[in-house]
Amino acid sequence: MTLQVAYQGEPGAFSEVAARRLLGTDIIGRAFRTFDEMFEAVSSSECDCCVAPIENSLAGAVHRNYDLLAGHELTIVGETNLRIAHSLIAPPDVELDQIRRVYSHPVALAQCGRFLRAHPQIEPSPSHDTAGSVRLIMENARGDEAAIASSAAASIYGARVLAGGIEDHPKNFTRYLLLALRARADAIRPRESQGRRKTSIYFQVADRPGALFRALGVFAMRDINLTRLESRPVEGRPWEYSFYLDFVGDARDDGVTRALANLAEICETVRVFGSYASKW
Amino acid sequence: MTLQVAYQGEPGAFSEVAARRLLGTDIIGRAFRTFDEMFEAVSSSECDCCVAPIENSLAGAVHRNYDLLAGHELTIVGETNLRIAHSLIAPPDVELDQIRRVYSHPVALAQCGRFLRAHPQIEPSPSHDTAGSVRLIMENARGDEAAIASSAAASIYGARVLAGGIEDHPKNFTRYLLLALRARADAIRPRESQGRRKTSIYFQVADRPGALFRALGVFAMRDINLTRLESRPVEGRPWEYSFYLDFVGDARDDGVTRALANLAEICETVRVFGSYASKW
Repeated sequence: MTLQVAYQGEPGAFSEVAARRLLGTDIIGRAFRTFDEMFEAVSSSECDCCVAPIENSLAGAVHRNYDLLAGHELTIVGETNLRIAHSLIAPPDVELDQIRRVYSHPVALAQCGRFLRAHPQIEPSPSHDTAGSVRLIMENARGDEAAIASSAAASIYGARVLAGGIEDHPKNFTRYLLLALRARADAIRPRESQGRRKTSIYFQVADRPGALFRALGVFAMRDINLTRLESRPVEGRPWEYSFYLDFVGDARDDGVTRALANLAEICETVRVFGSYASKW
Repeated sequence: MTLQVAYQGEPGAFSEVAARRLLGTDIIGRAFRTFDEMFEAVSSSECDCCVAPIENSLAGAVHRNYDLLAGHELTIVGETNLRIAHSLIAPPDVELDQIRRVYSHPVALAQCGRFLRAHPQIEPSPSHDTAGSVRLIMENARGDEAAIASSAAASIYGARVLAGGIEDHPKNFTRYLLLALRARADAIRPRESQGRRKTSIYFQVADRPGALFRALGVFAMRDINLTRLESRPVEGRPWEYSFYLDFVGDARDDGVTRALANLAEICETVRVFGSYASKW
C-alpha cells in the first residue's frame, strides 16, 4: 500500500524533498499548513508518517517540532540530512534585471543575505512558505516578481531557475526526522538505513546542583557518544528546562539499556523517542 | 549624563518596559528595527547599553540574541525577568464587537490563542512588532482594527485597553540582559542589583565522547549550580555545537575562578560574558 506522508508547506517544499529521499518517490505526499496539523494527521492515523525538520546547521533547533515531539506519542523511525540549496525562481519570461520583489520564508531570505545585498533593486518580502512563494508568483504572473525556493518547486509550478545556489553558506543542512505511530512503525522502511544507529530521548532533571552532570554521566561512564543536547522550557515552571538528547547506539544495545535504566533512577521523567539508522 | 539605551521595537515595546525596570525612567530610549542594529549601536558607542531579550519561559531561547552575544564584545551588566501580559488595544471609540482584525508579533498572537479562538470573528494578522501594531491601528484609524501589545503601548499612542491579561498562560516571563561595552560597564548601575550574582559564559568542546560531561564536571565538583544551558550550531561545522552556560556565582569568586581555569584546560574556547546581579 502506498504510504501517505505528511509534511508542512506546499508541494516542492524542502520537507517534501526530504520525504522522497527517505521513502522513495512512490509515496503520496500530504501537505499541511502547520507543524501542529501535520503531527495531528499522523497521531489520528489520517497519514502513515510525517517528515519534521528538527534542526538546521545554521539556524539551529526548530523549537516547535521539539515541543510537538514531547506532546505526541510518535516514534522516530529514520532521519536524513538535506543540503538546503536556494534558487531564485521566476516565471519563464522574466529576466533577473526586471525583478523588483522576491517572496520567501524569512529564514530562506536571511540565508540569502549576500545575494540580496548585491541586488538592492529587489525588495525581499516575507511569506509563509518557500514553495508557496513560487505558486504565488506564478498565479500573480507579473513581470517583476520572483521567489526563493528549492529548484524542485520551480519544476512543479513550471517556473524557471534564474540563479541557483544563492545561499550565503554552502554548509547549510537541515536534519529531518521521520515519525510514525509505534503500531505502524514496522511498516515504514526508510531508504539509506545503513550505518550506525542513533537514539533520541527526552528527560527532566530535578533543580539541584550537579543534576544534569549526573544525567550525562550515565552515558559518559559507558563511552556512549552524545551527538546533540537541546534544552527547552517546561511550561508553567519558568526557568526550569527539559532536555532532548541524541546519542550513538540502539536502545536495545546492552550498554544503552543499562544507561537508560540508570538515567530513570536519577531523573523525574525519561522518554525514548526511538532508535533509528543515522544518515551522515 | 542621561544613559542612551538601545532596544528592538518601537516605543512601548516590552523591551523598553524592561529597560525602565532596570535603569529607571530617567533614560533616553533608542528604538532599533532589528537586534543586529541594536548590538551595532552599542558596539560603536552610539548608545551606552542595550536591553536584549534572551529567553521566554514559554517560547524558549531567542536564538538571534545568543548568536549576537557571541559575535560582539559586549559585557552583561544586569538582567531582569519581565512578566509578559498582553492586552487587546483599539482606538478609543472602538468596541470589542466591532473588531474584525488584530495585528501583533507572531509570538504574541500565538500566546493569545485561547482569546482568539473564543473570538473567531477577529482575524489575526502577523506584524513585525507589538507596539508598532498599536501605532499602525492608530494611524489607520479604522473602526474594526485592534492590536495585541503591552498596556504601556496603549498609553503611549493614546489607544484604549479593551481587554487585559489575554495571554493563555499567566507564567509568561521574558528574561532580558543589559549589555554594554566593557569600558562603559562601570557607569551603568541597574536597579534591583541585590541578591545572588550569576555568571554567563560560552564554550566549545571537542567532538569526542564525554567532552560535555567533563566540561560540566568542573562546576559539579565545586557545587556550582547551573541555571541554564543552551546549545547553538557552529557556523561552517554542521552538527557541531557551542554551549552558552549560566551559573550561580561571580567570576571573581575563588571557586568560580578555579572552575573557569579548569574549563579552559579542557575546552577549545571559553569566553566569559560577565557576572551580574540576578533578579528572580
